[in-house]
Amino acid sequence: MNLMTSRLERIFSPGSIAVIGASRNRRKVSWEVLHNLVTYGYQGRVYPINPHASSIHSIRAYPSVLDVPDDVDMAIVVVPARHVLQVVGECGQKGVKGLVVITAGFSEIGPAGAGLEAELHSLIMKHGMTMVGPNCMGVINTHDGVQMDATFAPVPPLKGDISFMTQSGALGVAILEHARNIGVGLAKFASLGNSVDVSGNELIEYLENDPETRIILLYIESFGDPRKFVKIARRVTKVKPIIALKSGRTEAGARAAVSHTGAMAGPDVGTQALFEQCGVLRVGSIQELFDLAMAFSLQPLPRGRRVAVVTNAGGPGIMATDALVGYGMEMAQLSPETTALLKENLPEEASANNPIDLIADADGARYRLAIKAVLEDGNVDALLVITVPPIVTDEVDIARAIWDCARDYDKTIISSFVTRTKDSPAFMELVNHRVPSYLFPESAARSLAAMATYREYLKREEGEFQVFEVDRKGARKALMGARKEGRRRLRETEALALLEAYGFDIVRTKTVSDLDEATAAADEIGYPVVLKAVHPEIVHKTEYGAVALDIRNEKELRSQYDAIVKGLSSRGLEAREFMLQEFARGGKETIMGMNLDRKFGPMIVFGLGGIYVEVLKDVVFRLSPMTDMDAVRMIEGIRSYPILEGVRGEPPSDVPALAEFLQRLSQMVEDFHEIAEVDINPFLVFERGKGCKVVDARVLLAPEGS
Amino acid sequence: MNLMTSRLERIFSPGSIAVIGASRNRRKVSWEVLHNLVTYGYQGRVYPINPHASSIHSIRAYPSVLDVPDDVDMAIVVVPARHVLQVVGECGQKGVKGLVVITAGFSEIGPAGAGLEAELHSLIMKHGMTMVGPNCMGVINTHDGVQMDATFAPVPPLKGDISFMTQSGALGVAILEHARNIGVGLAKFASLGNSVDVSGNELIEYLENDPETRIILLYIESFGDPRKFVKIARRVTKVKPIIALKSGRTEAGARAAVSHTGAMAGPDVGTQALFEQCGVLRVGSIQELFDLAMAFSLQPLPRGRRVAVVTNAGGPGIMATDALVGYGMEMAQLSPETTALLKENLPEEASANNPIDLIADADGARYRLAIKAVLEDGNVDALLVITVPPIVTDEVDIARAIWDCARDYDKTIISSFVTRTKDSPAFMELVNHRVPSYLFPESAARSLAAMATYREYLKREEGEFQVFEVDRKGARKALMGARKEGRRRLRETEALALLEAYGFDIVRTKTVSDLDEATAAADEIGYPVVLKAVHPEIVHKTEYGAVALDIRNEKELRSQYDAIVKGLSSRGLEAREFMLQEFARGGKETIMGMNLDRKFGPMIVFGLGGIYVEVLKDVVFRLSPMTDMDAVRMIEGIRSYPILEGVRGEPPSDVPALAEFLQRLSQMVEDFHEIAEVDINPFLVFERGKGCKVVDARVLLAPEGS
Repeated sequence: MNLMTSRLERIFSPGSIAVIGASRNRRKVSWEVLHNLVTYGYQGRVYPINPHASSIHSIRAYPSVLDVPDDVDMAIVVVPARHVLQVVGECGQKGVKGLVVITAGFSEIGPAGAGLEAELHSLIMKHGMTMVGPNCMGVINTHDGVQMDATFAPVPPLKGDISFMTQSGALGVAILEHARNIGVGLAKFASLGNSVDVSGNELIEYLENDPETRIILLYIESFGDPRKFVKIARRVTKVKPIIALKSGRTEAGARAAVSHTGAMAGPDVGTQALFEQCGVLRVGSIQELFDLAMAFSLQPLPRGRRVAVVTNAGGPGIMATDALVGYGMEMAQLSPETTALLKENLPEEASANNPIDLIADADGARYRLAIKAVLEDGNVDALLVITVPPIVTDEVDIARAIWDCARDYDKTIISSFVTRTKDSPAFMELVNHRVPSYLFPESAARSLAAMATYREYLKREEGEFQVFEVDRKGARKALMGARKEGRRRLRETEALALLEAYGFDIVRTKTVSDLDEATAAADEIGYPVVLKAVHPEIVHKTEYGAVALDIRNEKELRSQYDAIVKGLSSRGLEAREFMLQEFARGGKETIMGMNLDRKFGPMIVFGLGGIYVEVLKDVVFRLSPMTDMDAVRMIEGIRSYPILEGVRGEPPSDVPALAEFLQRLSQMVEDFHEIAEVDINPFLVFERGKGCKVVDARVLLAPEGS
Repeated sequence: MNLMTSRLERIFSPGSIAVIGASRNRRKVSWEVLHNLVTYGYQGRVYPINPHASSIHSIRAYPSVLDVPDDVDMAIVVVPARHVLQVVGECGQKGVKGLVVITAGFSEIGPAGAGLEAELHSLIMKHGMTMVGPNCMGVINTHDGVQMDATFAPVPPLKGDISFMTQSGALGVAILEHARNIGVGLAKFASLGNSVDVSGNELIEYLENDPETRIILLYIESFGDPRKFVKIARRVTKVKPIIALKSGRTEAGARAAVSHTGAMAGPDVGTQALFEQCGVLRVGSIQELFDLAMAFSLQPLPRGRRVAVVTNAGGPGIMATDALVGYGMEMAQLSPETTALLKENLPEEASANNPIDLIADADGARYRLAIKAVLEDGNVDALLVITVPPIVTDEVDIARAIWDCARDYDKTIISSFVTRTKDSPAFMELVNHRVPSYLFPESAARSLAAMATYREYLKREEGEFQVFEVDRKGARKALMGARKEGRRRLRETEALALLEAYGFDIVRTKTVSDLDEATAAADEIGYPVVLKAVHPEIVHKTEYGAVALDIRNEKELRSQYDAIVKGLSSRGLEAREFMLQEFARGGKETIMGMNLDRKFGPMIVFGLGGIYVEVLKDVVFRLSPMTDMDAVRMIEGIRSYPILEGVRGEPPSDVPALAEFLQRLSQMVEDFHEIAEVDINPFLVFERGKGCKVVDARVLLAPEGS
């Protein structure tokens, strides 16, 4: 048993528990906790601690944990905040190694509470204790040998293979109740509260190795250490699905970012990037969380995306088809044998094609026939069975036909008895026999699609963290100039030098200061050329009319030069420095960049360039560091990816080169933590095999000493 | 009473009903219908018709409707299909004016049934009867004076102000049951079956004038006459909300369309365009249909989008905020007075900012205080109250506080008692007092947003159908050439002439056949110019390298000419015809087009031009004819609209001109029904006041005689 496991074993499998602050008042949380422990059938010994009672809930009580005559493995603390340090100190003295502190009134209420929380942390560190909380709603372990409901939730959990971690205690109570309502059983449950000691990451690693846990559900309000989460979750999701509900998607996160990439990073992109990168299934609501949990818990993963639908009414069949296709599933093309078999055995008015409509008077026998036929069909990966409440036949007969067939095949089967929920006999019949059942076909379709997605996660390659040979010295030199002069923004030439040191190709570029130098530079580079004015006040050159593209001869160069100088001068700017660059034809504009997020660290961004990307925000973010496969998937993830594959007869773009440069960029920002922003825009990509070239780049350093 | 109304009054308010085919067998639909009529308390007389029974359900039965001694206003037909013509004939003889034919076995089963259906139709036309069905599940009118449940649904409906039309009978049964479960009451219900006589459009017009109906719900599988639907619904939605669930979104609808605009029109775009055009609220699932219905039925529309959230737990408050903002609502900025009042009266740990967190021990009194404070605040348009099941206080107290406050204000109030549904006392307490309550905050947020959207529909201007002066003769001439030669595709010059006749500006264009003519034309037009090869095999010129843009002098023209000729010749094509055009600078590429849909008629499309549009499908469709406001909203509807408003310091584009040309295009295709496709691409738009110019256009005619 490694240290990590044993630390949490103290919480989840204690042999004895003290409930410190247990009350005789049935309307109090501190009574409810003790009550739950006893009524749920905790297999160890419980000691109520209360200086003013000799027994609580018919159990001998003690004034202090120090008075308990036996060993105490774990203590649940429900005393008022002002007494917490004292009772935790006594636990330390007593040798209690596990703590669940339900008491609130710590950092969540402000500075005063934060001070108390720091003292509590020191105390548990001193005694080498493991603590969940404070400000939490407790923990559950339904395992037969333990049977511990150490929460104040009003309804006991069902036993199952789903473990659930919540950062919101109140929501935790509601969720436990909902889980029970829809027949979803739990293995472990933990409300982490302020996560002073046991963090979400530690808990996930514990659940990774917990044999009772097959599915991990998370309700997250904020990440403690997102980079560590990625590392852990990438590993865990290869073994057990992680389904996460993350709230705070639209939290106002104003950013004073000047560059495009910064402005495109909304408050939620870090979370989204993180989940995609490590194969976590993200859901949008509590309902979806449990819809998915039910499917994952009761059924095997589908082998593919081909779904057959069997229904007793056309309407819901069409709606299921819409939903399935909308969630990325395919309607299975039934084999001719299946269709023939169905045609032969179903009434004339029925439909033997997918969706298979058994029509309104279908009974259990007809369902059984159709379900078996479809499950035998090699073209079918999964089956969705829909029933609208029949008038004439018994719905339980149909439910029985479904689960009975489901047992004999390892294909995924889910069902929707439209409008039938927990109270209906059909629902109970199905769920008790491991067939998930949903109120509406849309939820069933969504859950099935999530299972297919997870199966693809399981199979996908995570790739390698590549290390490229680079010129770190050169890069450091490019960064030093700005630091020495107290500038945060690198000059354009410095930015290009920095990128060059990390292996980026740059279009041929010369810095000039007047027209004569410009014409000479143009002759050297060769027409067509691009002329740009460089000025510290100009961030987006096109807005200032400070760029002229595709200049084909000296005459055009002279007239464009004049136009730029005049244009800037009309805005009160004097142009003293210009860049002359080759005008690279045939490349596609992309943007590549990095934004240092306070929480998530360096976030790499990629997208196609130009005005559309800015308006339509068609960019993908990933957390650094990134594997080679992360980089490829990132590029494939933009909606406009077909443009890089080549449309209208164009050759495909050099996507492998793009992927390499994303990794080089990642390596650069991991090497130099002082880089706060990189914006390579445009970054031209040429046809496959012909690489990429930086045209323009901006680099911003973090404030010194940050 | 107009003809339309009286036609449907026969169905919904008959004074006497014959149930033809009523059975004594309780397991039969034909017993269920009679049973429902009697037990729901139908206020008129019921006559069971059955040649083999003297009484059914304790009511005197007759062998034929002809034997009934009194007048019969309406007949419900449940005999087998082969007897339908006979009994309907007898109804005609008897003078029965309303028919609800539940019997199935007509056009839905194929050609044999279709023949029978045609005979049935002739018969009811002959007798001047109104018929709902065949193949339907019946009708309901809950109005006190009628109280008619003429369906075979197993649960009686609640009375309310929602009327519901369904094209799926089986789904209708399920939906009636779900409505009852969540406490949603109905005014009228009709399952239309095969819609041989009474159509959805006729029913909607009836419901428009029905004083009992305040909200109209539709479940649609296909449109009968979509152009008529638009006309009716545009009018009705200004008075009553229409909420529609349309299935068959992803129905395979392969189209052999060569042009871009055609390829971009998926099977669902017609439906989407239609609903947006006439202000119908579209939902994606049955659940959403009833979530919205509950909110619209119980609460007034919000005055605006500013929402306050009051909760007893942080987590669901954050989730509600995410959902509200995600659905386009705003979090209200509370006035300083409200915040001060809350701070003063709430516990220290509570949050007085929106979302207002009353913390876990909040009771009815604390909710009442916060709700009143928020409702008094002029910055708040609507309120979402969230409760997670409290451990200590009584949830019914909280529910009571909510509805009690709600009564005193005309602001919109909805609630979510997380995990609490129909069985919970809080749910019943709320819904019975006209406060909608949802299982999860997300559904509440979605419903509130739909109400806000509908209020905006109510206020929006529908605009005018403008008629422009055009040269119809010239247009006809441009079309005749192709018809005479048996071509379906117009020559480019013909297409441009057609558009010119409808007032479109065309870039200066000359057709030439060799290099000498080309240079002469270029001199006349003035450099820079565009050179294009014209060849019947070339549809997308760029794919063939058949276009050269921005040619600046004769030397470049000669070399580009050679390059195009060589390129085409290498593909085995001989270039005999070229177009020389001015190269218009400073315009933005848009596309404008029309696709004749078999079902929806001419569908107008608009989007920005270029490769991105093709890949990202950022286009908007509208049904023709369109008002001036339709045209403006259509342009504003593309995701990339900000580009037309001007980004990066650019001036705004001439959107009014675009809107005018959309209407001109609409007028053109309404005038000439033989036009099957128009694709104006690119259609350049210049800055405001400077108009638009057609660069390239393709026009395809419908097959002759179609």
